[in-house]
Amino acid sequence: MNFASDNAYGAAPEMLEALGAANHGAAPSYGEDPLTARLAAALADIFEHEVAIFPVITGTAANALALSTLVPPHGAIFCHRDAHIATDECGAPELFTQGARLATLEGPRGKVTPEALEQALSGVAVGSVHHSQPAAVSITQACEMGVCYRPGEVRAIAGAAQRHNMTLHMDGARLANALAFLGCTPAEVTWKAGVDALSFGMTKNGALGAEAVVFFRAEHARDFEFRRKRFGHLISKTRFISAQLLCALEHGRWLGWAAAANALAGILANGLGTISGVEIVHPVEANLVFASMPESLVQQLRAAGATFYDWGPLGGGCRLVRFVTSFVTPERDIEMLIEACG
Amino acid sequence: MNFASDNAYGAAPEMLEALGAANHGAAPSYGEDPLTARLAAALADIFEHEVAIFPVITGTAANALALSTLVPPHGAIFCHRDAHIATDECGAPELFTQGARLATLEGPRGKVTPEALEQALSGVAVGSVHHSQPAAVSITQACEMGVCYRPGEVRAIAGAAQRHNMTLHMDGARLANALAFLGCTPAEVTWKAGVDALSFGMTKNGALGAEAVVFFRAEHARDFEFRRKRFGHLISKTRFISAQLLCALEHGRWLGWAAAANALAGILANGLGTISGVEIVHPVEANLVFASMPESLVQQLRAAGATFYDWGPLGGGCRLVRFVTSFVTPERDIEMLIEACG
Amino acid sequence: MNFASDNAYGAAPEMLEALGAANHGAAPSYGEDPLTARLAAALADIFEHEVAIFPVITGTAANALALSTLVPPHGAIFCHRDAHIATDECGAPELFTQGARLATLEGPRGKVTPEALEQALSGVAVGSVHHSQPAAVSITQACEMGVCYRPGEVRAIAGAAQRHNMTLHMDGARLANALAFLGCTPAEVTWKAGVDALSFGMTKNGALGAEAVVFFRAEHARDFEFRRKRFGHLISKTRFISAQLLCALEHGRWLGWAAAANALAGILANGLGTISGVEIVHPVEANLVFASMPESLVQQLRAAGATFYDWGPLGGGCRLVRFVTSFVTPERDIEMLIEACG
Amino acid sequence: MNFASDNAYGAAPEMLEALGAANHGAAPSYGEDPLTARLAAALADIFEHEVAIFPVITGTAANALALSTLVPPHGAIFCHRDAHIATDECGAPELFTQGARLATLEGPRGKVTPEALEQALSGVAVGSVHHSQPAAVSITQACEMGVCYRPGEVRAIAGAAQRHNMTLHMDGARLANALAFLGCTPAEVTWKAGVDALSFGMTKNGALGAEAVVFFRAEHARDFEFRRKRFGHLISKTRFISAQLLCALEHGRWLGWAAAANALAGILANGLGTISGVEIVHPVEANLVFASMPESLVQQLRAAGATFYDWGPLGGGCRLVRFVTSFVTPERDIEMLIEACG
Repeated sequence: MNFASDNAYGAAPEMLEALGAANHGAAPSYGEDPLTARLAAALADIFEHEVAIFPVITGTAANALALSTLVPPHGAIFCHRDAHIATDECGAPELFTQGARLATLEGPRGKVTPEALEQALSGVAVGSVHHSQPAAVSITQACEMGVCYRPGEVRAIAGAAQRHNMTLHMDGARLANALAFLGCTPAEVTWKAGVDALSFGMTKNGALGAEAVVFFRAEHARDFEFRRKRFGHLISKTRFISAQLLCALEHGRWLGWAAAANALAGILANGLGTISGVEIVHPVEANLVFASMPESLVQQLRAAGATFYDWGPLGGGCRLVRFVTSFVTPERDIEMLIEACG
Repeated sequence: MNFASDNAYGAAPEMLEALGAANHGAAPSYGEDPLTARLAAALADIFEHEVAIFPVITGTAANALALSTLVPPHGAIFCHRDAHIATDECGAPELFTQGARLATLEGPRGKVTPEALEQALSGVAVGSVHHSQPAAVSITQACEMGVCYRPGEVRAIAGAAQRHNMTLHMDGARLANALAFLGCTPAEVTWKAGVDALSFGMTKNGALGAEAVVFFRAEHARDFEFRRKRFGHLISKTRFISAQLLCALEHGRWLGWAAAANALAGILANGLGTISGVEIVHPVEANLVFASMPESLVQQLRAAGATFYDWGPLGGGCRLVRFVTSFVTPERDIEMLIEACG
Repeated sequence: MNFASDNAYGAAPEMLEALGAANHGAAPSYGEDPLTARLAAALADIFEHEVAIFPVITGTAANALALSTLVPPHGAIFCHRDAHIATDECGAPELFTQGARLATLEGPRGKVTPEALEQALSGVAVGSVHHSQPAAVSITQACEMGVCYRPGEVRAIAGAAQRHNMTLHMDGARLANALAFLGCTPAEVTWKAGVDALSFGMTKNGALGAEAVVFFRAEHARDFEFRRKRFGHLISKTRFISAQLLCALEHGRWLGWAAAANALAGILANGLGTISGVEIVHPVEANLVFASMPESLVQQLRAAGATFYDWGPLGGGCRLVRFVTSFVTPERDIEMLIEACG
Repeated sequence: MNFASDNAYGAAPEMLEALGAANHGAAPSYGEDPLTARLAAALADIFEHEVAIFPVITGTAANALALSTLVPPHGAIFCHRDAHIATDECGAPELFTQGARLATLEGPRGKVTPEALEQALSGVAVGSVHHSQPAAVSITQACEMGVCYRPGEVRAIAGAAQRHNMTLHMDGARLANALAFLGCTPAEVTWKAGVDALSFGMTKNGALGAEAVVFFRAEHARDFEFRRKRFGHLISKTRFISAQLLCALEHGRWLGWAAAANALAGILANGLGTISGVEIVHPVEANLVFASMPESLVQQLRAAGATFYDWGPLGGGCRLVRFVTSFVTPERDIEMLIEACG
């Protein structure tokens, strides 16, 4: 009963087949191979836009490399207080940017609001050499609370960013889950809504380890290649990363896997919702379920062998806990979890 | 006829089987999985020593992370002028170390000598705040010219390093090729010879993409974990990297693959050696063949479809070129290359 | 009527005499001179403790260099939300530390409380590689709101820091003002209260430009020398910085100047306090006066030629503004300011 | 008998007067003061060109800040093997640039030649992500061997730099000495000869501590302000740095002081040249004298109380030593030095 993270589960069988298919003969190294070219074309197709794409192996690398391309060392990056870049990357954004500042925002359900952004910006002395200068906004889709930004919400944030000459980065570690929920096109929630750069994640969604930085504006590409190399993220046999991403994109598999994970989260949330004393805290729009439950139940579930994250005490003897489903989380495990609540 | 690099070829079929075998059920992320634990045990066994091991995806990451653990920002890293860290990593060592200096040494056939090291050190004002302070030596095994350090040579360099309170790093991107040639144990050419930290590469030798940083002294481990994370190299599904490394180590496969690559290099060198006007420049002790040949022959081979690296003009209308074999370079390609010289 | 900053005023005449006296003949460069040795002795005497001292030219350099010595790149620095390092150094702490995180705390009147510190620490996953690790606390004495930490308050913060294996840094840009107010010894409010490293500022208090980093624990000194050099802060003719600091320390001048500045702030606050609609917001314990006043009065004062900082709107048509006095702010200017309120 | 460095001597008396004159009343901080504005005008006048100027306190800061503005992290800086940035700044250029590479060149008498530059560039794979990309050339005027670049030499280097899309930086720590020797205008040997950025030093020439970064192209200015701040080099009471630089520039004092130092070096060289076994190794074109002398004489001079730098053994029982004169080195000390050779 592993609900700790969507990266606790392995890869889709199709991924391994794709790796096998990619493993024939010689190919140019460092992303000059035909599969990576095909990936670039596939992403341009899916996003309905010219893109510069760069496969990497981790989400932290994708985020930090993308941000360091968008933001000067004296820049500030506005993000939600609970953003992965602010809470789970051990200072990688600051490191990669040579010391840019993360300016964190409050916002309901883990989402940045244009109002919070505008308010934070109202206190900044633009042009003053004493203060980190607004440079980029970063939002997570689906966000860390499992809630999705609607295209209109992204557009509103992008509008605020643009009014202040900032770029917009999207951490799309769970973009597929968001798309499966929103039912919109990838374009509608990214560049059409004002996103400049995207961390396009597949590791949480069927891959062994495959992400890509996607730039919608060509001027960001060249510098990026050097950054990727210098931070050790230019992979010699890139074809094996590209093969994973292509495999996911073909036949819409990525959306299917994400939909499966979302559905499992829904089942889990419904089941937990029937348990007395348990409350589902946020709308379940992706593959994350946040629940308030009594401490005793938390211990009971752990004793039964369930793994999940503790988000801290809530008062009244309750704790906030997070359950994550993946595309292959066994439905039986969810049933066992609910049974263990009894 | 691809002789450009050993990373131009793909992965051993056993690697894909190992990935499939690793792809069952849930496992803790970020290297807390059982396969990574097994890898640690296997490496301790193979090196006959306690080790702290950290899987990563690229050799540049392995080198730069290892060096940044060994070397303070005000340190100097002594290495050969032709070392990969000096010529092919676009300043990654300087970046990861926050500005340490690479102090390059001359030396025959791409190898550092204790004499060159001592001479370089004799000019350093130890303790002076104006000068980067000697902190580590880095050697490549097999070296970039395809020549191997004998254990006694490593010991002599380590001795010089230790006399100056420096640590010794080995870039083992082709360690297997060196071991296959030397016929010694991994221990004999690493910690027994004074190596403190090792970039243990398998990407050039059968893996899709798998390296490990190996520390022989425990005190380097903890800080390293944070560095790996912060530079974006802590991989969530680490089990898929560890599985590759384990696959290589099991049944001595890594040495077998390396021996195969070495043997192919020998065949290639022998064949080229019969061509008039071609001279094999360095002893072929690994899977690299450096040859001097007339410009016209270089063009002839390229026209015939061979890919290989140009190492620059040599005078007399000749150029230095490099051919690399991998464990699966087709022997027929070598024959075709020699035929194309006709 | 310049109340913008204490660094808007120049240097004490004694400072210029001291520079003249230091300007005789040759002396070793880079801090090896006799005046710097005398300064070290004087500081050891004044602090009643062995110290390692390093003159620099700016407070930002002192803070960032000190913190980068105390804090690893993966560390977190806890400080007040209004701390100078958090608000006015454009990311210098992040830059110098290679990406450490500033974790800002709320607290009344600009002061860190042990409670806020403990609460923030309670949410940190100590040892987790995903999160910046608590490494240091930084407090400002007198704080940015012009309020002073009592020795007992510093001890309580240091106690909390030590319980969590953190060091304590004090930004003493206005330490003299605090001492003049508190009436305690320098030792009582620094190392005796648990401070490990001090940014000892004199630029705001009579010097042309002179600060020193003071370490109370010897192990921090060696690494620091290299940092200072590498960040461009090892001054060749250091004697001219040391001469300024010595001049201030001799005959207790620094405390006299600070007392004068504090007294002028008191006069200013008393004067403003008599104005209808004006409220002094914080106790005036140093040379800073924070006042709430109607927007119209702010404009009236600016029109009359007064310069001072705007701290933002307060609601009710009022703004928070800051007046700073220096040791030589003309008392007549204060009278004119009060008159201009009429 | 101090011939260790030109920074071993203090400041010109006029400097102290200028500081006194600058010490009146309040002035805006951080370089917004009238004296800094006057300095900017004076430098524009002297260089006959629009300039962006930034006072700082050390030459290392000036060099590293200027270079980090000109050079991206993946860039390479070409300089002479003996350049101060390569030998005496403990890796500051690498630190400030976030890991750019210094590519050192050989060249007679410490000077870069266009030929050496072109040859080094011929081996660079331009555009390859694996290699630091040529970005800037840095030359020192007068160079570290006390020899001056003629305007034509600078033009030739600049031409080579421009052909490769590189900028040209001049470390002008001893620019005044070079101008005093060359007899040309500041413009002729800087921007008219293709220099883009200049470290304009006065610390070695009469100041207490005052340098300025001078950009001849406006696009470099804005980013620089943030860098200067973030590295701790934005000085609150900048007026006291600007006052020093202005003092030097007024009435041509800087050239007079430099001429005096040069003349003393000439006297010293002439004197040493009469000593049997001593050879002046480089033309004395500034205030540096490099001499070859027997080991025994080196010891004899040190025993007599002379301080000077040892440049290492030369063979034949001789050593290379360096004597530096300043604008106020007592002529009597030189006589004593020569006498001590007897």
